[in-house]
Amino acid sequence: MQQENKIFPGRISVIQRKLADLKIHGLIFLNIINIRYLSGFTGSDGVLIICPDRSFLLVDGRYTTQAALEVQNIPVIEYKDKVEGIIQAIKDLGLKHIGFEAVSMSVDMYNQLTQRLDDEVLINIGDDLKFLRAYKDETEITLMKKAAAISSAAIAALIRDIKPGCTERELALQLELHARRAGADQLAFEAIVAAGENSALPHAQPTDRKIKAGDFIVIDFGVKYKGYCSDETCTFAFGQLTDQQKNAYQIVKQAHDDAIAAIRTNVTASTVDHCARSVLGEKYGQYFPHGTGHGVGLEVHEAPRLAPNSQDVLEAQMVVTVEPGLYIPGLWGIRIEDTVLVKENSCEIFTKMDKQLLIIN
Amino acid sequence: MQQENKIFPGRISVIQRKLADLKIHGLIFLNIINIRYLSGFTGSDGVLIICPDRSFLLVDGRYTTQAALEVQNIPVIEYKDKVEGIIQAIKDLGLKHIGFEAVSMSVDMYNQLTQRLDDEVLINIGDDLKFLRAYKDETEITLMKKAAAISSAAIAALIRDIKPGCTERELALQLELHARRAGADQLAFEAIVAAGENSALPHAQPTDRKIKAGDFIVIDFGVKYKGYCSDETCTFAFGQLTDQQKNAYQIVKQAHDDAIAAIRTNVTASTVDHCARSVLGEKYGQYFPHGTGHGVGLEVHEAPRLAPNSQDVLEAQMVVTVEPGLYIPGLWGIRIEDTVLVKENSCEIFTKMDKQLLIIN
Repeated sequence: MQQENKIFPGRISVIQRKLADLKIHGLIFLNIINIRYLSGFTGSDGVLIICPDRSFLLVDGRYTTQAALEVQNIPVIEYKDKVEGIIQAIKDLGLKHIGFEAVSMSVDMYNQLTQRLDDEVLINIGDDLKFLRAYKDETEITLMKKAAAISSAAIAALIRDIKPGCTERELALQLELHARRAGADQLAFEAIVAAGENSALPHAQPTDRKIKAGDFIVIDFGVKYKGYCSDETCTFAFGQLTDQQKNAYQIVKQAHDDAIAAIRTNVTASTVDHCARSVLGEKYGQYFPHGTGHGVGLEVHEAPRLAPNSQDVLEAQMVVTVEPGLYIPGLWGIRIEDTVLVKENSCEIFTKMDKQLLIIN
Repeated sequence: MQQENKIFPGRISVIQRKLADLKIHGLIFLNIINIRYLSGFTGSDGVLIICPDRSFLLVDGRYTTQAALEVQNIPVIEYKDKVEGIIQAIKDLGLKHIGFEAVSMSVDMYNQLTQRLDDEVLINIGDDLKFLRAYKDETEITLMKKAAAISSAAIAALIRDIKPGCTERELALQLELHARRAGADQLAFEAIVAAGENSALPHAQPTDRKIKAGDFIVIDFGVKYKGYCSDETCTFAFGQLTDQQKNAYQIVKQAHDDAIAAIRTNVTASTVDHCARSVLGEKYGQYFPHGTGHGVGLEVHEAPRLAPNSQDVLEAQMVVTVEPGLYIPGLWGIRIEDTVLVKENSCEIFTKMDKQLLIIN
């Protein structure tokens, strides 16, 4: 706990130093993940207001006791109504120019707040905090490695459970069991276990379809460990594949390997995406309909974004996925994904499963 | 599937009839749950545009194949960039006055869209669609009864697993297993299993705390079945309770029963809340820090809201929770929750667990 006690004030200080640059007297956070990152509060709703010399966490009555236990150094104030709570705090603090994150405030909330303000002004700080959580510190990296180890171990254990006739849904449940027993707090997202023609859907949901010979089985899985997410995808073969399937796997594997080889500090995210995409070439590029990867942390999808039109630049301490795929509608699909830590001249792979083609018989 | 084919066009028609009233040429939906309700698309991101004589579903490349499989009657258009996709659709359709739901659009999205529009205007339709999903049809009621039956059966099965020394976390995992094996698609929310002093936190997360004599064990649990949520809370006693604990349980039970007895069409939500709150009285009211209930459906929390300051009125076909609680910080807590269908002169309870005090030994 002592270490944690230092982390949150340090993060708050980063924001406080920004306030002068932004010419604002305070900053309102509505994004609950940012609130967790800055304060340690793990509830599902609340408001954090950071001023140059003090901060306040506003919560509803469900969370008053919990917030007081979780959050040191920041006073917790209970509100009955969220809008009224924010207005009251702005008035009590005498804030005039108040910043907010436009991606995290609804038009409705904005309208309700501005209607109740007098000479106070809400100021959209744009994407100034887009990379707030993108650079992971040592504590975060330790937790993310643990999350990755748990989910990789669960996938490894699942391989022994895959038998002809078992269903996607049964395997997804088994996978979750392995992960929860290994210490996962919860899933980072509902597990994807997609076999045969279902593997052609990048975001398939597990069904009662039974595993059979010739299937690709795409398993996209992640857990949360103390709030931090893992994200890994393996594509296994069940029984014999066609030559076309084997060839396609090797192409996706090469795309994955080339993208990972390109990662280092100061490389653009679009360059990494291009490394993967160019391996797929004209023939297969049309069957790769999503970006090559995304940041991971307290959220399973966060900044930066690895895609053709991304303006982001990778830098040391960022943690991102690399997950090229190839999906032939109605037939089969392949995706290969690792989560990596960007370093100065390379990257470190957190996820543990080997990505050579594994044929389960 | 034939039945479903009729449901979605019927729901779209309801929106189309509203367009003239609202003096708009089209309505943009960004809330993915509303999109699922109106179209049947189950992906995690997309945009639905409804016009008087046609509609369009916009998705990114991850969902093109899935959307085409799930959505009949509405053309699916793939976008590379969400904002550009919406702008393109507005231009192609020649829409001038375009409505949107202010609670579901971020200030950032609003700014990006308006910057790219010419003489087209975005019109905030306010809370005109607040109750869009509040009135459940027969198909929805059937699915919600099934979801409630699954989660109640899982809680009933869990009672046999509760032994001295087992942890909250183990019980939460066991509860999920029972539910998944009984047919749950996924959890509606992370299960709350909170014992002893942890039960004093209304939104506790399961820990490694072991169950021991004298504990209240609060179990707040819900599953999703074909998208629809259940929500039920039981508070069990493990071993002997103090007289104060027993008395408090009976008071919460009475609050729960009185609120349920008050439910019928045309009663205000605040009246139902008051029925529960007045039983707790001056002595215990301060320990009941949340509303008495909320609507349930495709989301576990949706309209209406049963709370002191709610302006909502209950009407037939709404499905709501009734969940008074009492939490003594640092000591123990109690919550008793059922999910009910509002009827003309009463309500029908979906959840199945009896709410008499159960003492597990």
